[in-house]
Amino acid sequence: MQATTAIPILLCKRLSTSKFVGARRSKVLTYDSINSHVKKVEYAVRGELAIRAEKIKEKLAKNEDLGFEAVVNCNIGNPQQLMQRPITFFRQVAALTEYPDLLSPENQDHVKALFPSDAIERARKLLKQIGSVGAYSHSQGVPHIRQDVAKFIEERDGYPSDMNNIFLTQGASSGVQSVLQLIITHPDVGVMIPIPQYPLYSATLSLFNARAVPYYLNEDDDWSLDIDQLTSSLANGRSKGCEVRALVIINPGNPTGQCLTERNMREIIEFCYNERIVLLADEVYQTNIYRPSERPFHSFKKILRSMGSKYEDFELFSFHSISKGMIGECGRRGGYYECTGIDREVVGQLYKLASVSLCPNVQGQIMVDLMVKPPKRGDPSHELYQKELKGIYASLKRRSEKLSGLFNSLDGVTCNDAKGSMYLFPRIRLPPKAIEAAREAGKQPDEFYCLAMLDATGVCVVPGSGFGQKDGTWHFRSTFLPPEELFDGFCANLKKFHQEFLSKYRD
Amino acid sequence: MQATTAIPILLCKRLSTSKFVGARRSKVLTYDSINSHVKKVEYAVRGELAIRAEKIKEKLAKNEDLGFEAVVNCNIGNPQQLMQRPITFFRQVAALTEYPDLLSPENQDHVKALFPSDAIERARKLLKQIGSVGAYSHSQGVPHIRQDVAKFIEERDGYPSDMNNIFLTQGASSGVQSVLQLIITHPDVGVMIPIPQYPLYSATLSLFNARAVPYYLNEDDDWSLDIDQLTSSLANGRSKGCEVRALVIINPGNPTGQCLTERNMREIIEFCYNERIVLLADEVYQTNIYRPSERPFHSFKKILRSMGSKYEDFELFSFHSISKGMIGECGRRGGYYECTGIDREVVGQLYKLASVSLCPNVQGQIMVDLMVKPPKRGDPSHELYQKELKGIYASLKRRSEKLSGLFNSLDGVTCNDAKGSMYLFPRIRLPPKAIEAAREAGKQPDEFYCLAMLDATGVCVVPGSGFGQKDGTWHFRSTFLPPEELFDGFCANLKKFHQEFLSKYRD
Repeated sequence: MQATTAIPILLCKRLSTSKFVGARRSKVLTYDSINSHVKKVEYAVRGELAIRAEKIKEKLAKNEDLGFEAVVNCNIGNPQQLMQRPITFFRQVAALTEYPDLLSPENQDHVKALFPSDAIERARKLLKQIGSVGAYSHSQGVPHIRQDVAKFIEERDGYPSDMNNIFLTQGASSGVQSVLQLIITHPDVGVMIPIPQYPLYSATLSLFNARAVPYYLNEDDDWSLDIDQLTSSLANGRSKGCEVRALVIINPGNPTGQCLTERNMREIIEFCYNERIVLLADEVYQTNIYRPSERPFHSFKKILRSMGSKYEDFELFSFHSISKGMIGECGRRGGYYECTGIDREVVGQLYKLASVSLCPNVQGQIMVDLMVKPPKRGDPSHELYQKELKGIYASLKRRSEKLSGLFNSLDGVTCNDAKGSMYLFPRIRLPPKAIEAAREAGKQPDEFYCLAMLDATGVCVVPGSGFGQKDGTWHFRSTFLPPEELFDGFCANLKKFHQEFLSKYRD
Repeated sequence: MQATTAIPILLCKRLSTSKFVGARRSKVLTYDSINSHVKKVEYAVRGELAIRAEKIKEKLAKNEDLGFEAVVNCNIGNPQQLMQRPITFFRQVAALTEYPDLLSPENQDHVKALFPSDAIERARKLLKQIGSVGAYSHSQGVPHIRQDVAKFIEERDGYPSDMNNIFLTQGASSGVQSVLQLIITHPDVGVMIPIPQYPLYSATLSLFNARAVPYYLNEDDDWSLDIDQLTSSLANGRSKGCEVRALVIINPGNPTGQCLTERNMREIIEFCYNERIVLLADEVYQTNIYRPSERPFHSFKKILRSMGSKYEDFELFSFHSISKGMIGECGRRGGYYECTGIDREVVGQLYKLASVSLCPNVQGQIMVDLMVKPPKRGDPSHELYQKELKGIYASLKRRSEKLSGLFNSLDGVTCNDAKGSMYLFPRIRLPPKAIEAAREAGKQPDEFYCLAMLDATGVCVVPGSGFGQKDGTWHFRSTFLPPEELFDGFCANLKKFHQEFLSKYRD
């Protein structure tokens, strides 16, 4: 252990005011002397609750009796952490590309017993295009895979897509960060973001020193997006001196789970067109759609192109990911974004920016290829793939309904059900005594509630304040990802906690 | 294809000056209206030469006769692109972790025929710690793997290392970028970088709007680092109003291949200590050492700790990677950095920053684990691992010597041999007529030479101007990674080209 790491934080702060104190020098880098924009970043999904959850895990590992057996991480959309099994075909192809000796003739007897022929075929084909998964690829992503992405988009939307406008990324987050970095030219640039929002957006705006211009989703109407809200939010931003350059839409919503109607999307495009605002469409939950006939997913690209030639120069970035959907390959860090109507020179600058980081990891790229081009009807793996996909989908839908049902059954809690995504964002009404106790503990009331939940049940959720919420309202975000066989127990624990919390703080 | 992508660049630029031209609107995002720091970024390794090389590849794929059969990418240290085989044990473990069904009892007969028992054992152990490679890990990296990294550092250096000070990253580049982002607080922050340098550093300083304070390596003395150079460079930077906060040392050097002596390293540490400068040690080539008895590698961490308690608060970041060495797993994007003597709160801010990007890709983390903890003596895979490692090492050494020998045999070319890394950086003296022709073509003379080399031979190298060089001198960087069986032909082609170039431009 280094001696310096043992200095209490307070002492460090004091030391940093004078250059030398006895034999010990102050540091060049202290909390006071580092980039203030980094310090301003807030990222609640992995904030205090998550850190406390890690400490509880350590205690449980030492067999301490806390009244529950495990921490349940509902704070982050991380399906495979909660035992969701990966899609078999995808992992078979990944394994074969990792160890190409498995494709050599002398191993064929064993390999054919372990892997279906279409996985072997696919791995061969990918390796022919890629070479080795250990080699840097094209900085924008393997051309063959970008071609497959373009084909997927064309089939999904019915409109052309160009592989030169597609960037493979290390998850959607890194794509979002690159695009925002490009757009932000001075500290008064404003980017419109929903409230509640996924904190990647506020964090990135803090980091790059730009201003968030919030617009509120309407909780009373299923978290819908009202164009009047956009208009007043924009006016408000401009009145404060913001040059509003971009609008972020998360559809399906995170943390809110709403799914936009086609009509609403047209209005949004018109709004951006009239106001000369670039649209960033975060569509990573596009296959997590739980009312497909009533509220299907439409991509902004498709709606845009359906609106005709007036909008052909409209500027849109659309983001997708392998981390969500029924795939849930978060740890692999893969995704892509498509540039629609973006100036060629600007695309060139994004390419240069990507090249400084060399390339997205190749296994993440391979998973993007598998996502956009899964086994087809007639392929040996098609049946299993469909079974796995539908099984996960049906289970997510059941769990989402069970959990929103539970939340709505609790005293003082209301919760819109999820049309899409992996989250619920219930509103909690806390008794005055609880709010008082929170204040005394120096916490926001929703944070106070969530910490109590974690301590009582091991369930880790994220307070609404991490996403933003209307003043005076309190929420939390929970995934509905705990394994289905444990789900009833999970719900029962939450119910018991809530009742006990309410009786403890009842007037 | 989108209609807009067909507009010539010049037209776009003109359009952007007025808001509407006929039916076509100007874009919100144009070259003129995006982040100027992004525009200032230069990244020669993937610059004009590399783009031209891609075009030549397309021509060759269409069977056009260009007088050579293939493009040889010596512009980037990407061993597996040039047919270096991955380490078998590493890929076996990676494949097993990708598809854990291979570890289930019913598959054991086949799997044992394909994989050695220690690979199976290792995959099991890693999966027990990680869960699924498809789940987000701890943002700083899987704790178990960070523990293995700390143990590796302790064994390498003989001094303690703390896993809480280790960050797993997506390649060394992303770690360097995070640390620089933290250090840069205003546009007059200066970071000392070597000339010649790896362009990641200048690119990142441009992007984050800070100033590069160059110090020159001494070509006449084997690219050695002279402390007087550091002193005068610092004085120069300060005289221009820079607040110099950090010094970057690349050891072994890129593009120069030098390896620092222990004495020199002590001087550098003292210099930083006296001047209150944070040291960034880029040590990604630490196992590419070709004169181990005469010029062994020492880590800055080790030298620092050997200097005693006076330096215990010294601030050092050390970077390592799976992309280089004999492993060469570039496409996987894995690496780590260690914080030595860094304030706990500052480490906490780096952790928060890492958490916004969620986590480094898990297969990259697994490869870090394998790098720092390879098969031991007595393990079934030990012999093969050693054989592969030594084979690659010996071949790299032979190729480095062959290529520097070739360069030194060419008229007007001198080249220091490589003590370490994967590159040579020969100096070329070009006839006045060639310099004149370059000027007429609007190119730097070294760029002109390298473009001619690419067109004549298919060999792609990077002009010295991409790394920086003393005014009036011209260089290029070439890897010595072409496959050994093709190496003599590769050298002969270069020789022939050089002779023809000289006769073409002789007075």
